[in-house]
Amino acid sequence: MDEMDPKLKEAGLQLRRRMFGKAGADDALENASAFRRRFEEIVTEQCFGDAWNRPPLDHKTRSMLTIAILATLGRSPQLRYHVQGAIANGVSAAEIRETLMQVWLYAGIPAAAEAFNVAGVVLKELGLDEPV
Amino acid sequence: MDEMDPKLKEAGLQLRRRMFGKAGADDALENASAFRRRFEEIVTEQCFGDAWNRPPLDHKTRSMLTIAILATLGRSPQLRYHVQGAIANGVSAAEIRETLMQVWLYAGIPAAAEAFNVAGVVLKELGLDEPV
Amino acid sequence: MDEMDPKLKEAGLQLRRRMFGKAGADDALENASAFRRRFEEIVTEQCFGDAWNRPPLDHKTRSMLTIAILATLGRSPQLRYHVQGAIANGVSAAEIRETLMQVWLYAGIPAAAEAFNVAGVVLKELGLDEPV
Amino acid sequence: MDEMDPKLKEAGLQLRRRMFGKAGADDALENASAFRRRFEEIVTEQCFGDAWNRPPLDHKTRSMLTIAILATLGRSPQLRYHVQGAIANGVSAAEIRETLMQVWLYAGIPAAAEAFNVAGVVLKELGLDEPV
Amino acid sequence: MDEMDPKLKEAGLQLRRRMFGKAGADDALENASAFRRRFEEIVTEQCFGDAWNRPPLDHKTRSMLTIAILATLGRSPQLRYHVQGAIANGVSAAEIRETLMQVWLYAGIPAAAEAFNVAGVVLKELGLDEPV
Amino acid sequence: MDEMDPKLKEAGLQLRRRMFGKAGADDALENASAFRRRFEEIVTEQCFGDAWNRPPLDHKTRSMLTIAILATLGRSPQLRYHVQGAIANGVSAAEIRETLMQVWLYAGIPAAAEAFNVAGVVLKELGLDEPV
Repeated sequence: MDEMDPKLKEAGLQLRRRMFGKAGADDALENASAFRRRFEEIVTEQCFGDAWNRPPLDHKTRSMLTIAILATLGRSPQLRYHVQGAIANGVSAAEIRETLMQVWLYAGIPAAAEAFNVAGVVLKELGLDEPV
Repeated sequence: MDEMDPKLKEAGLQLRRRMFGKAGADDALENASAFRRRFEEIVTEQCFGDAWNRPPLDHKTRSMLTIAILATLGRSPQLRYHVQGAIANGVSAAEIRETLMQVWLYAGIPAAAEAFNVAGVVLKELGLDEPV
Repeated sequence: MDEMDPKLKEAGLQLRRRMFGKAGADDALENASAFRRRFEEIVTEQCFGDAWNRPPLDHKTRSMLTIAILATLGRSPQLRYHVQGAIANGVSAAEIRETLMQVWLYAGIPAAAEAFNVAGVVLKELGLDEPV
Repeated sequence: MDEMDPKLKEAGLQLRRRMFGKAGADDALENASAFRRRFEEIVTEQCFGDAWNRPPLDHKTRSMLTIAILATLGRSPQLRYHVQGAIANGVSAAEIRETLMQVWLYAGIPAAAEAFNVAGVVLKELGLDEPV
Repeated sequence: MDEMDPKLKEAGLQLRRRMFGKAGADDALENASAFRRRFEEIVTEQCFGDAWNRPPLDHKTRSMLTIAILATLGRSPQLRYHVQGAIANGVSAAEIRETLMQVWLYAGIPAAAEAFNVAGVVLKELGLDEPV
Repeated sequence: MDEMDPKLKEAGLQLRRRMFGKAGADDALENASAFRRRFEEIVTEQCFGDAWNRPPLDHKTRSMLTIAILATLGRSPQLRYHVQGAIANGVSAAEIRETLMQVWLYAGIPAAAEAFNVAGVVLKELGLDEPV
């Protein structure tokens, strides 16, 4: 499995391109250091190429689930990318807000507060800080 | 706020009844010890009566988000109740399976393995261990 | 519950003002984006207006508990605010130090080390890096 | 440091006896397997013999902090012992309840719900499920 | 990737057999419910078939790392299996003890205490509670 | 135990010097504020002076275990120091990579991704971004 499966690689790159742009897809893979390369390949193939594309969950639902998990874990840098990716997958600002309210309920105020900070910056950059 | 808001209380009890049955709704509130009562009231009002009912997320989506958060945190007893509640909210076994696959990706094998154990028991009891 | 309860709102703002100054109270609420507003309202009412003011725990004890929880969770930005708030609530530098020693025992060296870094900066700014 | 410091050992055993009884103190140390012995010695000396006895925090405050940390981490077996120890250190049922309400705020509903379950059992056994 | 790669499947099953016996290898895969099957396949192929066998880390070192991660996360059921697997991979009781001492340092007393409980049971069953 | 044990202090400083340089050893202890001093002393004595030097685990193995725990907990600043320390203890870039792959398996993609970022920076600074 040291060589990438061409079909999974292409499916993974295609989804990464849509969610994160070329910089977070082809460039991330091609420019990966020797230290990081195998990890990037696995994430591309197994995560974005295989698991994200399995029925019956669509990309929009998977994006909301991913935001909830990353906010719970407090992984802010990855959360930032996935808020951007969620919008590309059709999640609205109001849906992100309510996803974070669910994080507030089940993971507490600090998890939600940090995620509101992170998501707020992305939404502002994109002009999506919509009225309630 | 020491007395419950009647409207939120009723909305919360109604949702709890649908998701967990009367034992996990009216009985849980009425039989709560003095030690636990205020916490049960808050959960009923603020969580199930208010937050769970806000647009634009429906109960089905909130159930999937809740499963993802509880599996990430490793809270197995609560996860068990919420798998039952998710099915009452219209989440299918295949959707629970893929929610846990997203947990596998972002929170690791042990978080997913434990959640597959917990959810598997509930699905078996309900005769919902469906073919892929 | 979409409109704030005036009594809880005022109680919450009053405590937030004392702990974090006007910038972390009235301004935080008034300047909240549409995306964040409901979350700020809930935190003001339910957290600082209601829960923090319930007997028999005083604000000083609640501040120490909050520092312990935030350090355990590794939520450094919120910890920074709450170290400032703890001092406003009468917690001494020596009491913060021993709170973090309890974090060292039960959550390990990295949780405590990070919290000592965060709290040390706040104490230095306030001229409170007291001799043992 | 392979042999225990007699003064710290005695101070640690004394506090463990008060909080957990002889079974959770002398017996735990004397009956420890070879595999576990060094760990029990360190906990007795460094944790209960040294850190727990340092000014300015009293045992009652340290018990509340410990309950908050253990509930946040979801460590239910240790939480059970420390609820018992907290009562021996003078923490009331109402103070435990409010400590867990602070956990609810900052670590979420499941952390608090599980801790209310654990603490409720101990309080019931001791006949301390007091009216609010 | 819905059909298993025969080479990775065999490599994964072989390692699972050695670490957990036939019940935790062939049986786990063959008897998996429809709900759980894909997850078991992925764990067999990607985890035990691929990642665990990559140079330069041997199985013994990977077992110690896995014990440290599972104890940190508080995943006791999985920890139990991996203590058994570690011994099959050549980790001694003294090496498990010192792995848990490292957990004590960096993840705190409760993470280590719970892991000492879990590992102690396995070692006792195997007659490996060796003198220090 | 308020005065440092000279033998443990020297053993701890010696290991800290080797892993982190004089700045992370003698200077860290001598320049510690009154607020932080006791914590630095305990870490020097009990962690680096005592626990890290106990048989049968060598420093190299303890460094890999520490990296796994810190990556799992998401403690990036401490992880950075310990990647540097691991290299001083003889861990190769390929061994760090595979340690993080084990983190990927058991703690998920975001824990590993963040750790690959942190470790990648240190390895690049040291010219150790070796080919696979």
